[in-house]
Amino acid sequence: MRVQELAEIVDGRVVGDGGTRIERIADLDHAREGEIAYVDNEKMFAAAAESKASCLIVRDGVELLDRTLIAVANPKLAFALVGAALHPSVRREPTIHPTAVVAETADIALTAYVGPNVCIGEHTHVGAYTRLEAGVVLGSNVTVGDDCVLHPNVVLYDGVSIGSRVILHAGVCLGADGFGYVRHDLGYTKFPQVGTVVIEDEVEIGAHSCVDRAALGRTRIGRGTKLDNMVHVGHNCDIGERVVIAAQTGISGSVVIEDDAVIGGQVGFGDHTRVQKGAVIGSKAGILPGKIVRPGVWWGIPIQPLDQYKRMNAHMNRLPEMREHLKRLEAEIEKLKRQSTDYTE
Amino acid sequence: MRVQELAEIVDGRVVGDGGTRIERIADLDHAREGEIAYVDNEKMFAAAAESKASCLIVRDGVELLDRTLIAVANPKLAFALVGAALHPSVRREPTIHPTAVVAETADIALTAYVGPNVCIGEHTHVGAYTRLEAGVVLGSNVTVGDDCVLHPNVVLYDGVSIGSRVILHAGVCLGADGFGYVRHDLGYTKFPQVGTVVIEDEVEIGAHSCVDRAALGRTRIGRGTKLDNMVHVGHNCDIGERVVIAAQTGISGSVVIEDDAVIGGQVGFGDHTRVQKGAVIGSKAGILPGKIVRPGVWWGIPIQPLDQYKRMNAHMNRLPEMREHLKRLEAEIEKLKRQSTDYTE
Amino acid sequence: MRVQELAEIVDGRVVGDGGTRIERIADLDHAREGEIAYVDNEKMFAAAAESKASCLIVRDGVELLDRTLIAVANPKLAFALVGAALHPSVRREPTIHPTAVVAETADIALTAYVGPNVCIGEHTHVGAYTRLEAGVVLGSNVTVGDDCVLHPNVVLYDGVSIGSRVILHAGVCLGADGFGYVRHDLGYTKFPQVGTVVIEDEVEIGAHSCVDRAALGRTRIGRGTKLDNMVHVGHNCDIGERVVIAAQTGISGSVVIEDDAVIGGQVGFGDHTRVQKGAVIGSKAGILPGKIVRPGVWWGIPIQPLDQYKRMNAHMNRLPEMREHLKRLEAEIEKLKRQSTDYTE
Repeated sequence: MRVQELAEIVDGRVVGDGGTRIERIADLDHAREGEIAYVDNEKMFAAAAESKASCLIVRDGVELLDRTLIAVANPKLAFALVGAALHPSVRREPTIHPTAVVAETADIALTAYVGPNVCIGEHTHVGAYTRLEAGVVLGSNVTVGDDCVLHPNVVLYDGVSIGSRVILHAGVCLGADGFGYVRHDLGYTKFPQVGTVVIEDEVEIGAHSCVDRAALGRTRIGRGTKLDNMVHVGHNCDIGERVVIAAQTGISGSVVIEDDAVIGGQVGFGDHTRVQKGAVIGSKAGILPGKIVRPGVWWGIPIQPLDQYKRMNAHMNRLPEMREHLKRLEAEIEKLKRQSTDYTE
Repeated sequence: MRVQELAEIVDGRVVGDGGTRIERIADLDHAREGEIAYVDNEKMFAAAAESKASCLIVRDGVELLDRTLIAVANPKLAFALVGAALHPSVRREPTIHPTAVVAETADIALTAYVGPNVCIGEHTHVGAYTRLEAGVVLGSNVTVGDDCVLHPNVVLYDGVSIGSRVILHAGVCLGADGFGYVRHDLGYTKFPQVGTVVIEDEVEIGAHSCVDRAALGRTRIGRGTKLDNMVHVGHNCDIGERVVIAAQTGISGSVVIEDDAVIGGQVGFGDHTRVQKGAVIGSKAGILPGKIVRPGVWWGIPIQPLDQYKRMNAHMNRLPEMREHLKRLEAEIEKLKRQSTDYTE
Repeated sequence: MRVQELAEIVDGRVVGDGGTRIERIADLDHAREGEIAYVDNEKMFAAAAESKASCLIVRDGVELLDRTLIAVANPKLAFALVGAALHPSVRREPTIHPTAVVAETADIALTAYVGPNVCIGEHTHVGAYTRLEAGVVLGSNVTVGDDCVLHPNVVLYDGVSIGSRVILHAGVCLGADGFGYVRHDLGYTKFPQVGTVVIEDEVEIGAHSCVDRAALGRTRIGRGTKLDNMVHVGHNCDIGERVVIAAQTGISGSVVIEDDAVIGGQVGFGDHTRVQKGAVIGSKAGILPGKIVRPGVWWGIPIQPLDQYKRMNAHMNRLPEMREHLKRLEAEIEKLKRQSTDYTE
């Protein structure tokens, strides 16, 4: 594509030769002729000056001589959009592969792609332009919206519903039974897990993540939320919109995470916790059951406000010194006692 | 089903109209006509009074006016049993799907269901009424008991054995090689992993959990034990009966967990630890290699008895105050020194 | 095989009857006739004396009477090699199973095994003697070297490249999109993930582990490195040679781990950290973003040198005692104040 075309996509202003051909995106250091990179802040100026990229996306007002530029308000966002234009995700011809096993009552959009060895159960709906890659298994009464991509070996249990423009990476499992049992004299009896899972539009879920069905009712992942790899979401959780959750975080049953929360990796949530809108929780944090996490930045096991966590850490690092201090005072008191003519035990 | 029939299943006493038709289970808040809910304790009484459920399961002796009741000793357990009766797990017609690839020497019960794209190796046995859902892969010399459900894409390596009434959720992997190598000058050589995995009756394992084969001998999961999603069980572990392990817990090699232990999520076990019968380990705890965990409740990294952990936490929270205290004492000592006519450095 | 043959494989010296037939490896305690075990150190001598093994592998110079021995420099390594000889991994006849779906442009070595329901994309190469077990999915432009084993349901996204003698356990996923988004007023836009994954020779990766593709450039796992189950490797990471990483460890984007590092289980790495050659990081440790981890043994959240971590723990355990100490000093100061005739507030 030409620089001029790319600039139009991102609503940018071309400085230099709009006819320059661009084939790929790249980072500043590795970019070569025919490639486009971006400059997000002043720290990148030195690398930008050295870069061999044929075009740079810069912030409005930034001037870099001798280079074709696209000036925009948000260079990183523009770069993402340019990347999507230059590297569109794989297109598949609409088809149902002959090895796919599709129930007669399933309703598959004519524009959908159903790959090799895909299995689709009774009364399941697959929307327009959706891609089901090899080995995907959809149970019965599943709903998959339009323009979704389900990567190989994704499994959706019966009754699960996902919106449009959803991306599920390889091995994602939605709708397995929640972890609930009733203890009695002879052991454990399974508590019914007869609810479902609802994934809203524009959610992306990383490889091997699992979202369990609700015991009763539904487990929900809100619109535009992004989960990294190997995230576990327990039964009856309600995750809001535009939430970001990094890899290997585990969320127990009935947790509520409100919109726009940001959750690090390997975080653990006790059941029935509630994370309020806009809270940020650092990686490896642990949240006790039932806790309400207010807006702000949280850290540690159990979590505390980041400031307090840092102070606590500083105090702990001063423990050896405190101990020395204590000994010194003791020695002085001893001396005072010995020297005080009045002192008696 | 009618209330009277449900009451018979749970050995309960009907108060009111035993002929009331019930179609689904529900929770108190969302229940509607034709649904049954349960009341486990006094906190639920207010919601019970408001509930639109057609029938409530209550503890013997509880009186709720104007409602059809089933009175039992353990309402939650009764609710679980009623749920199983009203929402039986999917029944599949016995069949071997034409896309399944089954070795000639495999021994498949006539009543078993072998779904699409299932692969079954040589000399493998599949028991009566067992369901192998789409994409399940069983190696050679595998034994699967009766009435099991293996959800899509479960993988059992060669030689693995599972009992009856076992449920394995999507993507469970049993019998992969344990993680063992011999270090030498040129790098690592694989230590032989030629043992196996034995899963006893009534075990349920959550999606994407892995149980590695023993190096020599076997890795065992005892009868009635329940594992949540993404649990890792290393080679040569011996997990007892009726053990419960929450999501994302990792168990290193040669760990022994005795019967009736309860393990939280994201717990990490060093190798060769032993958890004694009935111990309870809180989420995110870390257990050092070789540790013996006695009965009681344990918490923290490394684990300590819960009481001690709480005291320790309280002490840490008091650190800033201790530091102030120390400064105050120092000031007083200074004063004493200055005021003491006898004091000499 | 006969003892003499095994001794030749490991370059060992036979003591006793080199004609003894050996069928299996075993540990000292469980070994029976026809089995071989090893004795690595003096602690094992008592068990060795009791063992029913037909042959023992011992360190040069060790004398055990009345037993056929193979004496070597490194008994555990020799045992591993003997195990590999006695229990060779399954051999498959070269074939492409009729249910496999192989693109016309794919290039499959004549000696490769392509199992049931395997899918192979356009322009993908599979090397000599490589085994692709049931349900493996290779995208387009994938390269798999010689003598690899890909266990069931492994997924390699488009463009991923793996070397020779690589073992990938069931469900391993290489090349899923990295976790990168650009935040803006309306939510998150996906940052391009157009790089790739390169796995070098002799790597082994445990079940369900995921290695994400680079945003730009490549994510690399170096020669001879071993990953346990459910390890997450984020985009653009560079893991060196002969690195060992235990189960459930999570590595954020752009982390560098140099050669010969040893990483425990459930460790979490912030992005852009660098682990220097030969560093050892204990299980459950947490490393802050951007941190440089020097050689030595590290522990804790956030990590600190093991010695320091132990001292810190000792200090914390002494907190109750310190508090008592503080109170005692206060009481003595009070006494001094009261007894000092000169003291004024």
